[in-house]
Amino acid sequence: MSIAALTEVDDGPRSKRPAILAAAVECFGETGYEGTKWSAVAGRVGIGQTALYHYFESKAHCLLTVMRLGLRNSDVAFHAATADAPTALAALRAAVGAAYALSPQEVQQNRILVANIGLLAAARSSEREETERLASRELVARVERNWVELLERGIRAGEFPDRDPVIMARSLLGLLTGVWRWYRPDGALDLDDIATYMAGCAARMVAADEP
Amino acid sequence: MSIAALTEVDDGPRSKRPAILAAAVECFGETGYEGTKWSAVAGRVGIGQTALYHYFESKAHCLLTVMRLGLRNSDVAFHAATADAPTALAALRAAVGAAYALSPQEVQQNRILVANIGLLAAARSSEREETERLASRELVARVERNWVELLERGIRAGEFPDRDPVIMARSLLGLLTGVWRWYRPDGALDLDDIATYMAGCAARMVAADEP
Repeated sequence: MSIAALTEVDDGPRSKRPAILAAAVECFGETGYEGTKWSAVAGRVGIGQTALYHYFESKAHCLLTVMRLGLRNSDVAFHAATADAPTALAALRAAVGAAYALSPQEVQQNRILVANIGLLAAARSSEREETERLASRELVARVERNWVELLERGIRAGEFPDRDPVIMARSLLGLLTGVWRWYRPDGALDLDDIATYMAGCAARMVAADEP
Repeated sequence: MSIAALTEVDDGPRSKRPAILAAAVECFGETGYEGTKWSAVAGRVGIGQTALYHYFESKAHCLLTVMRLGLRNSDVAFHAATADAPTALAALRAAVGAAYALSPQEVQQNRILVANIGLLAAARSSEREETERLASRELVARVERNWVELLERGIRAGEFPDRDPVIMARSLLGLLTGVWRWYRPDGALDLDDIATYMAGCAARMVAADEP
């Protein structure tokens, strides 16, 4: 399993952080965050509780880190996909495509993010948890801003009808992330099918005239 | 605060169940499910812990009941709104309208439902909690089926292009329920504005041709 999606610039080659995060993604994905025992994560990585606590002070701290890195990856992928798009409509389709161009691990990470997004609403009493929560909220706002700017570009260029870009960005994010509530890797549709279907939905929602 | 949305046919006039559920909706809405102390709910209704446990064996049992009743209300409202619609497109717009024709309490109930929907994924060890969870899952499936049948009607009538109605129903539900992640009663948009905006998004997504 690739762990690039769970690695940060300050993780040295001997850091166990990415491996712990990968194990947590597996555990949270299989039995849910609530249903996962924190000690089960240590067991899966093959480290002791002491080493585990060296990196993460709690299960919530670990979850919030998984969520922050998932949001960071979405932000990076959005910019990579849309940078060279010749039109706003092409950028919209590319951004939707990027939202589903994911490894199985990244899919789990997104499912965990969506299932636990409510955790970002209330302040944490632990300082390290609160740092991750605030960074995650900042990234949620940044991801929304990416979509708003794409929509504003299309409206300015006359490609898209002039509909409120903030509400449209939130609507698109609701549409796209809603997939993680029902998508299963062994389901009838693969991610390519879903990406094509959702790109059509998004394009009609944003650019079509009223039927 | 109206409690019709939290009442069931077998609640007698002296039952404290609806009042407990209304207090729970307020508490969960204000400080989140995790952040709410179960004893705070009893305090708000003005009953003791013993009376509270007569109706609900746990905070999770109460939350699952709030969620089931929210889903029941959505199902009933969908049928009431669409029963007399002359076309599938009119039914689609009416169903979207019904999704936002809510009292402030019902809005809170929907926000709680969306924020905690992940709770329906894993079996509960308590029998009463599990009964509510299974009933809620059944209602989630019924609500999805309502939308699928509406879409199939439009496709059969040649009103809507032939796009997979199951994926479209899920996409619409993602779009519509996504609103509860960002809507605030004191925000810039009121529910009527949101209903109009979302009805347009849904109509274009379902009925428009590719731009």
